[in-house]
Parts: sequence; C-alpha cells; structure tokens
Amino acid sequence: MLICKVLKPLVSTNRIPDFEHKHLQIVLDGSSKKVAVDAVGCVPGDWVICVGSSAAREAAGSKSYPSDLTIVGIIDYWDPQTGSSQSTITSSSKATNLGDK
Amino acid sequence: MLICKVLKPLVSTNRIPDFEHKHLQIVLDGSSKKVAVDAVGCVPGDWVICVGSSAAREAAGSKSYPSDLTIVGIIDYWDPQTGSSQSTITSSSKATNLGDK
Amino acid sequence: MLICKVLKPLVSTNRIPDFEHKHLQIVLDGSSKKVAVDAVGCVPGDWVICVGSSAAREAAGSKSYPSDLTIVGIIDYWDPQTGSSQSTITSSSKATNLGDK
Amino acid sequence: MLICKVLKPLVSTNRIPDFEHKHLQIVLDGSSKKVAVDAVGCVPGDWVICVGSSAAREAAGSKSYPSDLTIVGIIDYWDPQTGSSQSTITSSSKATNLGDK
Amino acid sequence: MLICKVLKPLVSTNRIPDFEHKHLQIVLDGSSKKVAVDAVGCVPGDWVICVGSSAAREAAGSKSYPSDLTIVGIIDYWDPQTGSSQSTITSSSKATNLGDK
Repeated sequence: MLICKVLKPLVSTNRIPDFEHKHLQIVLDGSSKKVAVDAVGCVPGDWVICVGSSAAREAAGSKSYPSDLTIVGIIDYWDPQTGSSQSTITSSSKATNLGDK
Repeated sequence: MLICKVLKPLVSTNRIPDFEHKHLQIVLDGSSKKVAVDAVGCVPGDWVICVGSSAAREAAGSKSYPSDLTIVGIIDYWDPQTGSSQSTITSSSKATNLGDK
Repeated sequence: MLICKVLKPLVSTNRIPDFEHKHLQIVLDGSSKKVAVDAVGCVPGDWVICVGSSAAREAAGSKSYPSDLTIVGIIDYWDPQTGSSQSTITSSSKATNLGDK
Repeated sequence: MLICKVLKPLVSTNRIPDFEHKHLQIVLDGSSKKVAVDAVGCVPGDWVICVGSSAAREAAGSKSYPSDLTIVGIIDYWDPQTGSSQSTITSSSKATNLGDK
Repeated sequence: MLICKVLKPLVSTNRIPDFEHKHLQIVLDGSSKKVAVDAVGCVPGDWVICVGSSAAREAAGSKSYPSDLTIVGIIDYWDPQTGSSQSTITSSSKATNLGDK
C-alpha cells in the first residue's frame, strides 16, 4: 500500500455510472498526483494508506467497483520529514486522528 | 486512478475482435503517452480520470473486455499549472464540462 | 495500454506448457525491452498496442493463459518523432497496415 | 516479489473493517516507503519478501482481503551491501532467522 | 513479460505455508533485484522470461499460488550487450539451453 497525503476533493460530473457518488480525492504519492476513492472519510491534509491493484475494488465496497486506488485507512501520526509514524498509540480504541492537517 | 490529458484518437484497424469498436484515445500521463479505452465520450483537450489494473475491464463495460486503462470520468476543471481542480461546482447536476479544451 | 515497437521474435524452447506455441515478440516500450504474446500477427517494425495487467490473459485467448503483456492491435500509422498517429484513415475497413516497418 | 527491509509498525486506527486487526509494517523498497500486511510475524530490521498484485490478497489470508502488498517470507540472510543472500543454509529445517536486525 | 538474469537461489525458511517448497530465485531486472518463483528449473546465469501480474499465479501452478513474478521460460540465446536474441534456432525441438551461464 502507498502512503499518500490527501490534497483536495476532485469533481468529475461526467463519469461512468459504476462510479456512483463515492468521493474522489486527489492524493499526493511522493511528487505525483493520483485520484483515489475515499472509503474512510478523510479530509485534506490527512496522511492515508492507499491500496491499489485488484484489492482496490473490494476495498471500495464491492468486487465490481471500478477503482484501482482506494483510501483504506488514516495514519494516526506521520512525520513527512523523518517519514516515521508514532507507534505508541493503542490501536484498540477508535482514537481521534492526530494527522498533519 | 491517473489524471491524464486526452491528445487524440488512435486508429488501429487490425486489432483483436474482443476490442470491438470502442474508441481508443491517446492520453498523456505526465510525459508518457498511453492508450486508453474511452467509456465516457471525451474529446482532445479534456482532462480525464483513467482507471488501470483489473478495474479497467469492468469500467470498459464487461469483465472480459481486454482493457488495462479506461477513461472513467472527465474532470470538471483542472489547472495543469497548479495541478489543482476547482471544487465549487455542484456534483448533483449533469454540468457542462468546463475542462481545458 | 502501451505503445510499443516490435523488435523481433523471441525463442524460448524450454518454457512452461501453458505457454503453448504462441509467438512471443520482443517489444520496445520507450527504452526498455519487454516480451509480449502476439495475438494479432505482427512483424518487426510494427507499432503496436500492448495490453498488460490481468486483461493480457483474456487478450491472449483464454482467462488461464499466463500472459501479462499481449499485443492486441497494430497502429495504422505512428510517427515516433512527433509521437502522433494519423487519424484520417477510416476504421470501418480492414485497411492495410501502414506502420513504420 | 520485492526484497524489502522492515522499518516499523504502522498505526492506523481509522481504517476500513475489512482490514481487521492484522499488523501493518512500513517497509523500505529501495528508497521508497510502502505499507505491507504482515503474514509471517516479522520485526523491524528483518529483510523480507513482499508479494504484490492480486497475489497479495490470498497471501494475506483470504481472497477478499484488501491487500496489495503482503510480507510472505523472512529472508534467512541478506547482505544489503552486496545484495546477496547466503544460500548454504538448509531449507528443510525451521532455522532461526539470521537476518540483519 | 520481463527479461531477467537469474542470479542465485533465495533461502527463506520462515515463509507462509502457501509458498510450499517451490524454488525462489533472485533475478536481475535491469539494475533492480527481484524474487521470482521458478517454474521451469533454471540455474544462475540463465536469461529468463518472467511473468508478473495475476498471470504469475497460474504460471506458478495454481490460481491460488501467491506469486507476483514467475519464471516461465528460459531464453535460448540472449546477448546482454546488444539486447538481442538469436532467432535461428528452431522452436519445435526441446533444444539445449544455450544461454549465458
């Protein structure tokens, strides 16, 4: 999976019906911009985990959903300078997202 | 998904029957040219969303369609200089495409 | 799909039985050489459309064929200098391939 | 498959339910950081084999698991300087992992 | 498919059971090292064809085998300097592999 930063929503009115009304986000993968389907409800500034390949379809909700990049998780803490995450947060509670917003 | 610019149609008379008569477009992904199946009806100059991987097949119409890159949406507004989209357009109406043509 | 130039056939006598006797071609994708299964009958010098991902299997003839890159069409005309195709040829007739040979 | 070095666990509290409670590891693939699902129980410093594409789903436990990168094995010995593995260890016994930790 | 050179076997004692006892080889794809499942029985020095994507699973023996890169054929002759294969060998006989060993 890729570690990406959410930039902003993407508006595409004229799209195939299979895309339904799911939100699309422009994400930054290193220095390249990509479009990902948002399956978790993230906001610009969040650091997220994006899954690609055929797994992106199931992650977006169904095997027939036409996504090749889906946001599947928000990283609790990510330091883009050191590229390291904070691993002291317990993962058993639905913690508030502490990401760089 | 990739953000690409549509350059022009591609003509390939001698192709496998499974490709049927769907339109192929040459798209620009960054600086590299690729071929995508057009599932939305775009024109040269449009900025579009292209889906790859196995999702490109369903997006092109059926699970057995042999595409690995399908144009699934036209971006309402894309500024290639800043690489940002205009997000003030309501997505509930079938708006006219305002893309860079 | 990728736009590649056919270089020459590749001979691999010791290969898995699933590969059957289909022709393999060495193709040039930009500056890197790859091997593609020929599903259209092309010759060295042809500019072709190559499909990858899981679509390469169906394109090669069956869902269980182990290809990840299959030549699915010959481009009618391709100018490698300008990187543009000639789009004035009607696609309704089985035209003679005019590619750079 | 890729040869990666395990850096540290990644915490993502807000993630899709399909991800369950499997451990995610940040791995280094060359100079780029990626996230992989841990199917073998590795620790930071291990050199591991990561499988991508659709095979990452089955490798993570089930065909519907939404992974595109799964750690499937720990390399017995890997020298990052020479990029070579030690091949004198018998593979029939469940040997202690000798990796760079 | 990729044209790779076989470097040496890779030993990974602690691996997922689905990997069974198939041989893993470190292969060189250009300048990057990857791990491939050996489905043909090659030796270090062989120039081989490696298939990726979902086709790597079937090529490794079954649809559920978790490979994303499988060696599917040994190239009869490959000159790494000119990057060309010798195409005068008949492919109807099980010829001795003439590769660079």
